[in-house]
Amino acid sequence: MVKIAILGYGTVGSGVAEVLTCNADSIAQKAGQPIEVARILDIRDFPQDPLWPKFTKDFEDIVNDPEISIVVETMGGLKFAYPFVKACLENGKSVVTSNKELVAAKGDELLEIARKNNLNFLFEASVGGGIPILRPLDQCLAANEVTEIAGILNGTTNFMLTKMIEEDMSFDDALALAQELGYAERDPSADVDGADACRKTCILASLAFGRHVFPEQVVTEGIRHITLDDVDAASAAGGVIKLIGRTRREGDKVYAFVAPTVVPKTSLIADVRDVFNGILVRGNAIGDVVFYGRGAGKLPTASAVVADVIDEVKHLSARKFLYWEKGAEDYVLAQHDFETAWLVRLTAADKTAAKAELNAAFGEVKELSRSRAAADELLVITPVLPEIQTTTKLGALQSSTVVSTLRVADFD
Amino acid sequence: MVKIAILGYGTVGSGVAEVLTCNADSIAQKAGQPIEVARILDIRDFPQDPLWPKFTKDFEDIVNDPEISIVVETMGGLKFAYPFVKACLENGKSVVTSNKELVAAKGDELLEIARKNNLNFLFEASVGGGIPILRPLDQCLAANEVTEIAGILNGTTNFMLTKMIEEDMSFDDALALAQELGYAERDPSADVDGADACRKTCILASLAFGRHVFPEQVVTEGIRHITLDDVDAASAAGGVIKLIGRTRREGDKVYAFVAPTVVPKTSLIADVRDVFNGILVRGNAIGDVVFYGRGAGKLPTASAVVADVIDEVKHLSARKFLYWEKGAEDYVLAQHDFETAWLVRLTAADKTAAKAELNAAFGEVKELSRSRAAADELLVITPVLPEIQTTTKLGALQSSTVVSTLRVADFD
Repeated sequence: MVKIAILGYGTVGSGVAEVLTCNADSIAQKAGQPIEVARILDIRDFPQDPLWPKFTKDFEDIVNDPEISIVVETMGGLKFAYPFVKACLENGKSVVTSNKELVAAKGDELLEIARKNNLNFLFEASVGGGIPILRPLDQCLAANEVTEIAGILNGTTNFMLTKMIEEDMSFDDALALAQELGYAERDPSADVDGADACRKTCILASLAFGRHVFPEQVVTEGIRHITLDDVDAASAAGGVIKLIGRTRREGDKVYAFVAPTVVPKTSLIADVRDVFNGILVRGNAIGDVVFYGRGAGKLPTASAVVADVIDEVKHLSARKFLYWEKGAEDYVLAQHDFETAWLVRLTAADKTAAKAELNAAFGEVKELSRSRAAADELLVITPVLPEIQTTTKLGALQSSTVVSTLRVADFD
Repeated sequence: MVKIAILGYGTVGSGVAEVLTCNADSIAQKAGQPIEVARILDIRDFPQDPLWPKFTKDFEDIVNDPEISIVVETMGGLKFAYPFVKACLENGKSVVTSNKELVAAKGDELLEIARKNNLNFLFEASVGGGIPILRPLDQCLAANEVTEIAGILNGTTNFMLTKMIEEDMSFDDALALAQELGYAERDPSADVDGADACRKTCILASLAFGRHVFPEQVVTEGIRHITLDDVDAASAAGGVIKLIGRTRREGDKVYAFVAPTVVPKTSLIADVRDVFNGILVRGNAIGDVVFYGRGAGKLPTASAVVADVIDEVKHLSARKFLYWEKGAEDYVLAQHDFETAWLVRLTAADKTAAKAELNAAFGEVKELSRSRAAADELLVITPVLPEIQTTTKLGALQSSTVVSTLRVADFD
């Protein structure tokens, strides 16, 4: 019998208790012994809950209980989660968390404390909800040099973009619908402005390439400015707009960024619809592998947390090797050197002159057309260039005005 | 330093040596120590190979070498692989294999020997080539009760079906092309008649549901009889034909079968094209998860083998829990009880009479039309019924003749 505690009895925390209860027999079989939820920390009261006798409002009851060997943190945020998780690891308890903000901000430090104390710190649920991605990345792909990861990491924005693409719904209406369905918060900023995808990109990059990448190092662009004209322009280019978190190794450094990106319709990533997540991992031996599933939700996320708990029960004495090194200020490459093509919409009174100027600036651009365009619109794809060069060239244009720019994915 | 041996220096075996060499540094880091290929068994000579000094033609040189702690079996087949793997496990060596025939036929016995001797027996590469699927199924999805698995498990037939679907190529031409490109053997039977998908279905079912399923228990139908008319009929039904290996738990028994199946175009599985594999896992907590990637090929498969080797190096003293129980004759349910809808093509001189008879037999069938059909064709989807009922009803029809029948998937 292994005793665990749960910090935070919100959606995920209560889901963890539910999964441990509903699947108790098969979980005990897989873990090698039964798992008991011994304590739950929450400031709220749940007197109707069958687990109510286990509740405490005092963290000391958990961190000082020598019988508790594993602590599940599902509080979210940093304020309490960070000191609590740190204290648990310093007091001989292995930790499982679903808290992406915590791992993205403090992962290297917490992994180091776990390593020193021969404990496990696992966080499968922090990326891709219930989709197994971090463990396959760490273990199954261990024989590969991973070169690149690109993923749809935020279900809320993917739901909104799907509505915009397939139902011609405006950004505002798609957001209102996402809020109505409970996919988006009343303050939707963490989703639509990309912070959530940014944190997950940090975790993927850190694990895949072995050094911590911090959110501040990841250039992050959300989808708030995406219009139905952008969606239509992407379609004219044979693609769909997806919010992509991306990281690529270059020598001993990495690129890492989040941006709405035109993904070719032929890509499996383009078919990831609604609230689903899809993550493409490219390895030197394995080629492309895609992981797909629900990126959020009570039970999918809880099941990923519980899988980590089972793994820690199986490794109470033998530490798992999941680990990455401390980050560094110059580890993430400047985004302006990243080479990409762009889908650019411009307006020009004299389109012939504007095209001539574009071709003069870029060598040659590929011109596209779409039926919904205003008469003065020019729609082009630029050649693959370092971002700074494209920005500079576009900024210097005299005969046309840039309306919108979107990176075009080079994966399919 | 851990010493390993490789049995069989064909495509996969030499790929294993190549991956271990090319990615040696990162592999040593992940495994915690360097891995050396100490011996290679093959009856052929490879005098030009840098590893030639390590070759032997005598298995005793490997099984009796106390310094070798892990043996990689990449010979294929049962004749030598089975006694060799068994002998290795009985002599204190952990084993990694890519041999699906071996695992499907002898998995329970070999897992039991490994368990008794506190050794590891891993075979990630036996299903889905380089796609991480068995370990996620065993570990990441441990908190789920898996209810069903459906997958495109054979890349060769998926390549052929893709050519038939997208380029209107006949079965014979698609097969010739697959052979020309090296995807299909000169004797393509293991691929096109479904034996390869059957073995992988056995392994997935055994691992997901905990008891061994043998190939003889899996009703297996290949794609040899699939025509372009079937492809067109599937399209009229809003789907594409995929060769699907499927297993589903029902109480404490399972269904397991392989069959060409009409998969709705909206399904992610329908988008798995060419030689790629895609595997849908349905869990009670996680919902649907899909794993996608190259199901075969030298380096993808070798990378999966090496990932297992790394895992065994990390667990030289602590056994992994991967395990399933012995099978039983009555464990797999009779296929004739499986409930499914069918896409049925029939010919009838008097279509009105034939339709009336069909509706009388089935309650109601859904009629479809397609432009390529001959004038006397009837194309219908039957209601969901146990297979035996549909077969009986179709066999009793007087006013029409059944030309072809295809199961219609109930997943999307």
